[in-house]
Amino acid sequence: MKAASHVPAGRRNVAILGSTGSIGRQALDVIARHPERFEVVGLAAGRNVELLAEQVARFAPAIVSAGSAEAATELTVRLDALGVRVHGTIFGKARDVELVAHGPKGLEAVACESGADVVLAATDGAVAFDAVFAAVERGIDVAVANKELIVAAGELLVAQARRSGSQLLPVDSEHSAIFQCLQGAPRKRIASIVLTASGGPFRDRTAAEIADATLEDALAHPTWQMGVKNTIDSATLMNKGLEVIEACKWFGLAGDQVHVVVHRTSVAHGFVVFTDGNVLGQLAAPDMRLPIGYALAYPDRLDDRRPADDPIEALGGERGAASTSLTFERPDPERFPCLRLAYAALARGGTAPAVLSAANEIAVAAFVDGRIRFGDIPVCIETALDGVSSGTLSLDAVRQADRSARDAARAFVVERATAGPARST
Amino acid sequence: MKAASHVPAGRRNVAILGSTGSIGRQALDVIARHPERFEVVGLAAGRNVELLAEQVARFAPAIVSAGSAEAATELTVRLDALGVRVHGTIFGKARDVELVAHGPKGLEAVACESGADVVLAATDGAVAFDAVFAAVERGIDVAVANKELIVAAGELLVAQARRSGSQLLPVDSEHSAIFQCLQGAPRKRIASIVLTASGGPFRDRTAAEIADATLEDALAHPTWQMGVKNTIDSATLMNKGLEVIEACKWFGLAGDQVHVVVHRTSVAHGFVVFTDGNVLGQLAAPDMRLPIGYALAYPDRLDDRRPADDPIEALGGERGAASTSLTFERPDPERFPCLRLAYAALARGGTAPAVLSAANEIAVAAFVDGRIRFGDIPVCIETALDGVSSGTLSLDAVRQADRSARDAARAFVVERATAGPARST
Repeated sequence: MKAASHVPAGRRNVAILGSTGSIGRQALDVIARHPERFEVVGLAAGRNVELLAEQVARFAPAIVSAGSAEAATELTVRLDALGVRVHGTIFGKARDVELVAHGPKGLEAVACESGADVVLAATDGAVAFDAVFAAVERGIDVAVANKELIVAAGELLVAQARRSGSQLLPVDSEHSAIFQCLQGAPRKRIASIVLTASGGPFRDRTAAEIADATLEDALAHPTWQMGVKNTIDSATLMNKGLEVIEACKWFGLAGDQVHVVVHRTSVAHGFVVFTDGNVLGQLAAPDMRLPIGYALAYPDRLDDRRPADDPIEALGGERGAASTSLTFERPDPERFPCLRLAYAALARGGTAPAVLSAANEIAVAAFVDGRIRFGDIPVCIETALDGVSSGTLSLDAVRQADRSARDAARAFVVERATAGPARST
Repeated sequence: MKAASHVPAGRRNVAILGSTGSIGRQALDVIARHPERFEVVGLAAGRNVELLAEQVARFAPAIVSAGSAEAATELTVRLDALGVRVHGTIFGKARDVELVAHGPKGLEAVACESGADVVLAATDGAVAFDAVFAAVERGIDVAVANKELIVAAGELLVAQARRSGSQLLPVDSEHSAIFQCLQGAPRKRIASIVLTASGGPFRDRTAAEIADATLEDALAHPTWQMGVKNTIDSATLMNKGLEVIEACKWFGLAGDQVHVVVHRTSVAHGFVVFTDGNVLGQLAAPDMRLPIGYALAYPDRLDDRRPADDPIEALGGERGAASTSLTFERPDPERFPCLRLAYAALARGGTAPAVLSAANEIAVAAFVDGRIRFGDIPVCIETALDGVSSGTLSLDAVRQADRSARDAARAFVVERATAGPARST
């Protein structure tokens, strides 16, 4: 048979926006295991200057950026202490020096001026939107772990990438699963897709129990190790709701083409149902380094020489076990209203997904701070969705919607917090 | 994101070798449902002249071939009765007439002279080997359902296709599954593959019960509707053993890279474990029209507008059900020695797989005729494997090995049959 694809030769230059976060650290772990494949040319982080300095000392990128001028100054001092020569705080191309920048300009420099072949967008929220759009505009490939970016402005990014020839690569495990299943398949032959959800810690709780859940309960995720925000989003299933929106934008699908099933063991991450009745699915250990590695090596795959000699283990069972089972359940939209809200935002279109995402951020932070109950999270989001008009999509409209949604959500939180204590301590 | 593949425009000319068999009939069913996609330009069958005449009357191919001169004569008479004008019994290109040929030359004419873009090789045994090689030599794509061809001479066919640029397409559901999972993936990144087996009707029987199984028992396949030979092969698991050998030859793998798991519901058909730890798998209803349609439409997919709105159904559950499970079990090589014999033939290499396949054919026929017990089938095959030297691979060597294996197997059957009745009637 003919070869199905080509494998690019040589090392790939990688820049990471958000290198000290969970995804950023795991990406550097992947890169460190494959020095023959990747070279780090740019790193950007926010406030964790200590870790950023260590990363710079280890990976020697050409351009580094910290979250603020103060953080950049601190970074310079720390690098000096680590014996790393810093040649300037302006932008430049020299490979043998580190140039420290900061803020939005710094993010853009790391993305566009570092000589990156691929930028990993692993920041949270909207901070790196401009830097990512700038990279895509220049035709640089971007691996996107920044959920908010796709939720709020996915269509714009995909359209921009189509114009410039930039390859966009999903890093979320579910979207990586779908992307892997779609290789070589004509997009118009997708009938529907299925995303799996672990179901989170509350999958077997009643609606009343969920409404009064504590922070500790919500952080006890059964299968994935993630940051606080993502873990709370998994407990509300908003994580999956946002992924449904992302999937529509990544793959050009309508809301009724994207289904969610609860799959408690997090072995399978996504399936594509084709118009010819065939279904392809992806399975992998719940380890973000796998989708990160796929995105960075695409269209090739890394060779991690994992043991692959036990088929039961490959299908999610214990090594050496006699059998393994993959079970999929229909989710309950009554107990998890955030999932319903995500489909509603998708149906409204325009900036509604940006409103959903921003209001959720405020609601989750308020819950973590003990200002509202767990059950208030969807109420807060619905209030924001109802209170903010959903405009036509543009980057400016997204920014405006984001601000308005945060204001509406904060107003809701203040009102709830004034009404009495959110939960017993 | 960039488009992952192109979709060819226009109708595809299809020739079918073995059009009256189970695969051939289902292929015509697929073609009949997609008249905008496919045109039948050649049909070849053996003795079922009545059905072949009906197929010719319906699909109007340019060239038709029957199994023998007598069958071709009968076909001409039947076509005349059906009002189909037959313009000759020699070879030609005219599209508006049917030309009836027969035998090996007829198969080759249907494959090579009918103007086929793709030939579906759906005959059993070795009868169409030369016709298929001739088509591949001319760069015509071939969809292969002829297991014996890949088992006995897969390497030769793959090498020939690589030289001529012919695209080979697997039609077996398991190999189609693997082929679908491999689209866009570099072949050198395959760590291992997993083929599923329903386990056949004897999956829960003891070794002693299996050895004395009746023909009726063996024909009661739990999930797939197939011909007698394939159904018996499913009961011995030789079907899966042959598929392991085929998989090695289709995808250039070693025996220890191909695993078998028992999956009773026949929802998932195959998985690819990549070197980066990601696993892709294929699921589909146990309906051969799906892999046939994929092979004929490749690299596009057919649009059958199947309902795809129930994710539980897409993953093998009942429509509307609350959940679905896919279970995979390790097979038992002790109870199913044919699986072990297939790996042994693979390890010996050369013509040993051809010997295995030919001896199995004789043994199965002898069991169906009541001449040997079910438990004698693997003994017969092992006797042939031990008695026939395994030469270097060439088409001539395969033919010689096939003959020797059949002789050895027949000698075994005669000896057993003389020793007493094979089973109670």
